[in-house]
Amino acid sequence: MSFFDKLKFDANGLIPAIIQEQSTGRVLMMAWMNRASLERTVNEGKTVFWSRSRQKYWVKGETSGHFQKVKEIAFDCDGDTLLIQVEQIGAACHEGYRSCFFRSVENATGDKITEPQLAKPDEIYGKK
Amino acid sequence: MSFFDKLKFDANGLIPAIIQEQSTGRVLMMAWMNRASLERTVNEGKTVFWSRSRQKYWVKGETSGHFQKVKEIAFDCDGDTLLIQVEQIGAACHEGYRSCFFRSVENATGDKITEPQLAKPDEIYGKK
Repeated sequence: MSFFDKLKFDANGLIPAIIQEQSTGRVLMMAWMNRASLERTVNEGKTVFWSRSRQKYWVKGETSGHFQKVKEIAFDCDGDTLLIQVEQIGAACHEGYRSCFFRSVENATGDKITEPQLAKPDEIYGKK
Repeated sequence: MSFFDKLKFDANGLIPAIIQEQSTGRVLMMAWMNRASLERTVNEGKTVFWSRSRQKYWVKGETSGHFQKVKEIAFDCDGDTLLIQVEQIGAACHEGYRSCFFRSVENATGDKITEPQLAKPDEIYGKK
């Protein structure tokens, strides 16, 4: 039985993929995959997502060079979420932070930035 | 500005919450919150989810005793995913594993169990 048969894709054919940096345990981002992008991720060894907003495949790093090399793929008890260990090149976040989760709740209502910005988005993607 | 105003709940009023064990960095599970369950999580200091299948609030640990004490709440650049650091009491997974992500892909199609089962579900929830 293929592990694909143990996965449950949602009504739109998608499954959320949590991306974790293997060397540090830092959770970098969460994005969505469909079956074909997961197959590409398995076969190509780098993360490939499905962009819900752009309705197209999205090779992480194809514009920025910030690829994610896949080290391990796990899935949860319900088969409806993936946890992918990677080696992250550069910044995972399009805002130039290592992790997309660079803001934390500080009290009941406020928030604070918890890590340094490695690069300005303009430096990664060019000025728009 | 409240951090709640920086969050984007989906068409069903939900946001995914990744739960990570603060002391080890282990990703334990992913579940869904609505605004009210997130407010309860902030105010009560333990995780409260919204069960999509049962359409009701779900205090993690209310049946099993396996509560999650909230240590930190982060959110991502797009404001559409939460990352919550917790202290996990017992097993996070209803199948008796520390983490719900106890299976990994072994090759292109197979999978393997990567951690010990701490308890049988019967021992946690009673026989059904």
